[in-house]
Amino acid sequence: MTAPTSRRRLLLVNSNTDAAMTEWLAGKAMVADQGAELTIATAPFGASYVDSRADVVVAAHAILVAIAQASTETRFDACVIACFGEPGLGAARELFDFPVVGLAEAAMHSAAQLAPRFAICSRSTRWISMLEELVTLYGFRDRCAGIYALSALAPEAQTQAESTAALVRVMPDLLRESGAAALILGGAALTGIAAEVEAGIGLPVIDALTAGFAQAGVLAALRPGKAWSGPYSWPGHRDVTGLDAALAKRFQVPPGS
Amino acid sequence: MTAPTSRRRLLLVNSNTDAAMTEWLAGKAMVADQGAELTIATAPFGASYVDSRADVVVAAHAILVAIAQASTETRFDACVIACFGEPGLGAARELFDFPVVGLAEAAMHSAAQLAPRFAICSRSTRWISMLEELVTLYGFRDRCAGIYALSALAPEAQTQAESTAALVRVMPDLLRESGAAALILGGAALTGIAAEVEAGIGLPVIDALTAGFAQAGVLAALRPGKAWSGPYSWPGHRDVTGLDAALAKRFQVPPGS
Amino acid sequence: MTAPTSRRRLLLVNSNTDAAMTEWLAGKAMVADQGAELTIATAPFGASYVDSRADVVVAAHAILVAIAQASTETRFDACVIACFGEPGLGAARELFDFPVVGLAEAAMHSAAQLAPRFAICSRSTRWISMLEELVTLYGFRDRCAGIYALSALAPEAQTQAESTAALVRVMPDLLRESGAAALILGGAALTGIAAEVEAGIGLPVIDALTAGFAQAGVLAALRPGKAWSGPYSWPGHRDVTGLDAALAKRFQVPPGS
Amino acid sequence: MTAPTSRRRLLLVNSNTDAAMTEWLAGKAMVADQGAELTIATAPFGASYVDSRADVVVAAHAILVAIAQASTETRFDACVIACFGEPGLGAARELFDFPVVGLAEAAMHSAAQLAPRFAICSRSTRWISMLEELVTLYGFRDRCAGIYALSALAPEAQTQAESTAALVRVMPDLLRESGAAALILGGAALTGIAAEVEAGIGLPVIDALTAGFAQAGVLAALRPGKAWSGPYSWPGHRDVTGLDAALAKRFQVPPGS
Amino acid sequence: MTAPTSRRRLLLVNSNTDAAMTEWLAGKAMVADQGAELTIATAPFGASYVDSRADVVVAAHAILVAIAQASTETRFDACVIACFGEPGLGAARELFDFPVVGLAEAAMHSAAQLAPRFAICSRSTRWISMLEELVTLYGFRDRCAGIYALSALAPEAQTQAESTAALVRVMPDLLRESGAAALILGGAALTGIAAEVEAGIGLPVIDALTAGFAQAGVLAALRPGKAWSGPYSWPGHRDVTGLDAALAKRFQVPPGS
Amino acid sequence: MTAPTSRRRLLLVNSNTDAAMTEWLAGKAMVADQGAELTIATAPFGASYVDSRADVVVAAHAILVAIAQASTETRFDACVIACFGEPGLGAARELFDFPVVGLAEAAMHSAAQLAPRFAICSRSTRWISMLEELVTLYGFRDRCAGIYALSALAPEAQTQAESTAALVRVMPDLLRESGAAALILGGAALTGIAAEVEAGIGLPVIDALTAGFAQAGVLAALRPGKAWSGPYSWPGHRDVTGLDAALAKRFQVPPGS
Repeated sequence: MTAPTSRRRLLLVNSNTDAAMTEWLAGKAMVADQGAELTIATAPFGASYVDSRADVVVAAHAILVAIAQASTETRFDACVIACFGEPGLGAARELFDFPVVGLAEAAMHSAAQLAPRFAICSRSTRWISMLEELVTLYGFRDRCAGIYALSALAPEAQTQAESTAALVRVMPDLLRESGAAALILGGAALTGIAAEVEAGIGLPVIDALTAGFAQAGVLAALRPGKAWSGPYSWPGHRDVTGLDAALAKRFQVPPGS
Repeated sequence: MTAPTSRRRLLLVNSNTDAAMTEWLAGKAMVADQGAELTIATAPFGASYVDSRADVVVAAHAILVAIAQASTETRFDACVIACFGEPGLGAARELFDFPVVGLAEAAMHSAAQLAPRFAICSRSTRWISMLEELVTLYGFRDRCAGIYALSALAPEAQTQAESTAALVRVMPDLLRESGAAALILGGAALTGIAAEVEAGIGLPVIDALTAGFAQAGVLAALRPGKAWSGPYSWPGHRDVTGLDAALAKRFQVPPGS
Repeated sequence: MTAPTSRRRLLLVNSNTDAAMTEWLAGKAMVADQGAELTIATAPFGASYVDSRADVVVAAHAILVAIAQASTETRFDACVIACFGEPGLGAARELFDFPVVGLAEAAMHSAAQLAPRFAICSRSTRWISMLEELVTLYGFRDRCAGIYALSALAPEAQTQAESTAALVRVMPDLLRESGAAALILGGAALTGIAAEVEAGIGLPVIDALTAGFAQAGVLAALRPGKAWSGPYSWPGHRDVTGLDAALAKRFQVPPGS
Repeated sequence: MTAPTSRRRLLLVNSNTDAAMTEWLAGKAMVADQGAELTIATAPFGASYVDSRADVVVAAHAILVAIAQASTETRFDACVIACFGEPGLGAARELFDFPVVGLAEAAMHSAAQLAPRFAICSRSTRWISMLEELVTLYGFRDRCAGIYALSALAPEAQTQAESTAALVRVMPDLLRESGAAALILGGAALTGIAAEVEAGIGLPVIDALTAGFAQAGVLAALRPGKAWSGPYSWPGHRDVTGLDAALAKRFQVPPGS
Repeated sequence: MTAPTSRRRLLLVNSNTDAAMTEWLAGKAMVADQGAELTIATAPFGASYVDSRADVVVAAHAILVAIAQASTETRFDACVIACFGEPGLGAARELFDFPVVGLAEAAMHSAAQLAPRFAICSRSTRWISMLEELVTLYGFRDRCAGIYALSALAPEAQTQAESTAALVRVMPDLLRESGAAALILGGAALTGIAAEVEAGIGLPVIDALTAGFAQAGVLAALRPGKAWSGPYSWPGHRDVTGLDAALAKRFQVPPGS
Repeated sequence: MTAPTSRRRLLLVNSNTDAAMTEWLAGKAMVADQGAELTIATAPFGASYVDSRADVVVAAHAILVAIAQASTETRFDACVIACFGEPGLGAARELFDFPVVGLAEAAMHSAAQLAPRFAICSRSTRWISMLEELVTLYGFRDRCAGIYALSALAPEAQTQAESTAALVRVMPDLLRESGAAALILGGAALTGIAAEVEAGIGLPVIDALTAGFAQAGVLAALRPGKAWSGPYSWPGHRDVTGLDAALAKRFQVPPGS
């Protein structure tokens, strides 16, 4: 039994203001989800590389602007926010009527179906505490066995090849000691090396960007309608000042209007 | 930017010994995942309709037999165990080298990306306590706002049309009071009505079977290799007696052999 | 034994863009903390009344701008962010070198010292889900017995007198049934009525604004130095674009410079 | 004040298909509970030594068969399932009308009354992840300070004397570092050495088999009736195919019939 | 296979200063544990009926005195503190070298082996909050579905017959709604009626005093030695003033001396 | 905007029977809270230095006596129990009508506003397990990253200068590894050195005694009335025997009478 396939329209938003990185992420995403028609957008203001709570706060606002601008003309099947700190995730779910995916969330929900306990590794030590909070909020306190930063584990690793080698060297012991049996790699620096790392450590390795696009496929497949009540419903019209026009409109007319 | 799509080979295993139900579930699954090439299998022994812990224990064994028999010749990209009690899920992940999906797990991981808190409804009251344990194990203790049984909420509802009408009538108040903003429908009796219920209640409704196939797509997309150590690795050769030959072989040679 | 007192310099930032409300909150705050020298600031952009995740995302950015501008010339002993959703709280703790207080956080830590379990009531139903997440993050999952919205409990109550009367009428039963023995009132609409409500219900009632200023006193008394490592340390210099000049400077030079 | 004693009729079921081990366990059990009249049964199919999720799935079915066969003629005061993975525990509680005891569960409930936090040690590393799930389900997430496998701690230890010596050597440091003040020993390989280990480490050591028989005494003393509603009540008549006749009967007539 | 039985020496300490109640409890205990040789003791100071935190604080001290006095001459196999608030439980475990049992703890560990979730009912509403804390500490937050006070459910019920009738009337609905499938009865007023209540509601009912004596049997059977390090070890010699001589001695010489 | 200040009447109760230590603690407290009018009291019986569960049980009773005696003539704005084990805290909240503060509780609520995760260090290893229970009860299981005892970390450190040096040496690594970004120092031996330790480690250090007085200021500022129902309300008249007259009166007439 087989059946025809459909093509999804996906929006990829980069939380960093670096447009070249957006292109690079899009290339990686196309490998991850060959069935998608991809539109890309870059945060219009903020930090060139997001890895602190302050960066995330600014990026969250910038991402709402970017999605509002990109979706003025086009209706997407889903949107992927390419950032491990989930900037603006809940807010975008309120303002827009297509599913919105966060990379940390998508990766954790994927990993939890592949191993009793998983670990997370990103590049910067500043992500550790932010990810701790996401782990708690998402419910993975007992499923996440460790959160690591490559810059602490192997400060000398700079290139992707060096990062891969470092992960293959240090992760097996860390995973065995912590009881994790799958590893999430997140953040631009560690994107696209999951297959090589997995080959080296013999346990499932989840690329957060790939997981994000795969989970976007789930949400598009489920075709959930916009929530018309409750926490992710549209907040209702409100007076706003000083906002980008496309974003301001999202505070004034319901999605779909 | 667009790219070609690939066709996944999926195995659907019905935990109930009712082969007609397997056919019916396969029909629903084809709607859910039009890109899959689907093989079906039915539990070779046990209860015609599984809804108690004792049924699940027998079904878990039967499902391992069914997967072992179905995968002797064919290598699948993923397997979906069509049962809300996840019979044999972890064991199948040990014995086989393709990802295995459980419906309750898949539905919860999907719902958690659509609402801060979700509720679950199945037909039989006996599922409530079993789902409580899965909610705890999967990490959704704070995310799952309520677990309901339609047979308690609306004992008179027998057909799918009656079930739909009953859910549209009783669920809005239950969801608002519990704080849930998405609803999972699970179990054969409630499969295939999510869209109608969603239209009636104005909040996302997740069909567990659809979620199962969508999450199978995630795991196939991530292409995780077999874990070669840790809890889901192959247990190693062991002496077994009294088992079906196909299953016994899985205890004697590593997957892929 | 007695000893002389000192005068604290506190910054009150209103997350709503309504400057008249800022003045009104300052008046209430002066009652709460008569020993403080108070500076006030208003969010320079965003919603006139914040009560959704989208509002909070914009307010978080606006609050960082407001604190950056207000603290250019003055060094404060502590800052109080007057909003129940804690917009920008962690980010402000990174960027600035004085303690920053959130109202929900301050109120919960105060209530937890007055009763085994407490409840929270604000005006809008949209706060409920956001407060659920804060309750989880702050650790009060087992201590918070209920989160209520007056607009759902008593939609007709508009004035503060009506709100007081409604709370006195409905809260005793809700608190007894939930097991809560203290009540937090939060949000501008319910600020300044705690004493009257307490007199009516016979259980401790915590005004979130008062708690915020009181906890600011705690943090000022503890005189914690700036964290020079770890999650609330300064993130380090980064390239930012499109930001308010005062805020941009906070991303470029360490606090105290 | 003293009073006469009564003699309990207990059923011991071995999850492993090794009948000699059943005899050996019965000998140990008689030491543990000298007041019991003991009947023994061995899993009729499955692995000779159970230590993976796949083994447990098969053993769960086999144990239901074994209990059904053993209880056809005899009514027991309680049944002890001699396996650390609790195969079939909840299902047996549904199908039969005498209390059923699991060794891991019994040992944890006993240890929790002897120390603020306890640790668990079994022989095989594969138990660790399965025990993690039981610890979560049973509620001991904050009470269980560590789960260890002797085969990882001391791979060279093969005999019981070597295991005892190894535990006395390595456990004191592990317990002190983890904060555990009692130790559970589980699995056939570590049965019967608790007293020697305790003498060596100076902290309470719980033999899981002894705890199982002691807790069976508790449940027999409480003389709980069969639950006639709720999760452990009899599931009701159902159509089953391909099952052992004694087990099939338990799906068709209520216990006690 | 059968074996001879042994006779345990148990100490029953009543936390209430009412000596007639101690005798009555001893009578109930003899029914519960016919194999024990029972010594009884009564709190030498404090409240005649303990049901508040203040009562428990005083009772905890009094119980240490009572155990110290009773154990001067006799070595017990275990001690049961007959009070639902566990006064002095951890402290007694430090000072003495025989196992000490608390009724709430014993009842919860017993109930958790009889049902996925249980409920607790005692007479006074003041126990509810104290039991909440014990439920959290003991790990039963997800296993305990409700804590009730008969004085709130049925204020008119005074005699044991009236209490039994009231429980049979109100509990079935409360248990079904909360998902509890076993009921703990605690406190002197509800001691000794478990069998009648169980007959009326068709779910297991645990008498806390019976559970206490049964768990004392478990701890006696396990024969754990005194912990010589860690939290329940003897605290070491210390200077104390103003204490009963028998208790003061326990602070000055190790147990067993 | 500034306003006049008021002077609080605070009661400091030392749980240790060492009156010289009470004087010394009062001196430290005056530094912490220069606006308070301080009354001091010492436990009238028990251990000269409290650091075990048995000590805490006796101290809890003694502290109720001390507060009852001190408050016979004077009405306090708040009371601070100077002990890390919170002896008598909940009971005092029942019996008296002014807020009562515990040092561990106050310190944790303060630290939780200064860092995502904190650690605790006291002198004696016996505090570790007791603090574990408080951490669980207060809700800080996920916020407290570690509990340490200086006597285990640096047994040779005896004076405050040596303790300071030892903490500066060992804490940075422990905090970084555990993810804690603030440190609580508790117990008399570590009181008064927070500023020096903070200067040495570059992360906020909370002195528990200072936090206790600061949180007492919060509770005094909130001016909560006595709870007239629920868990901290007055228990009501009861028959007590063998108690100090001042304490006995508190069991017989409501606070304020």
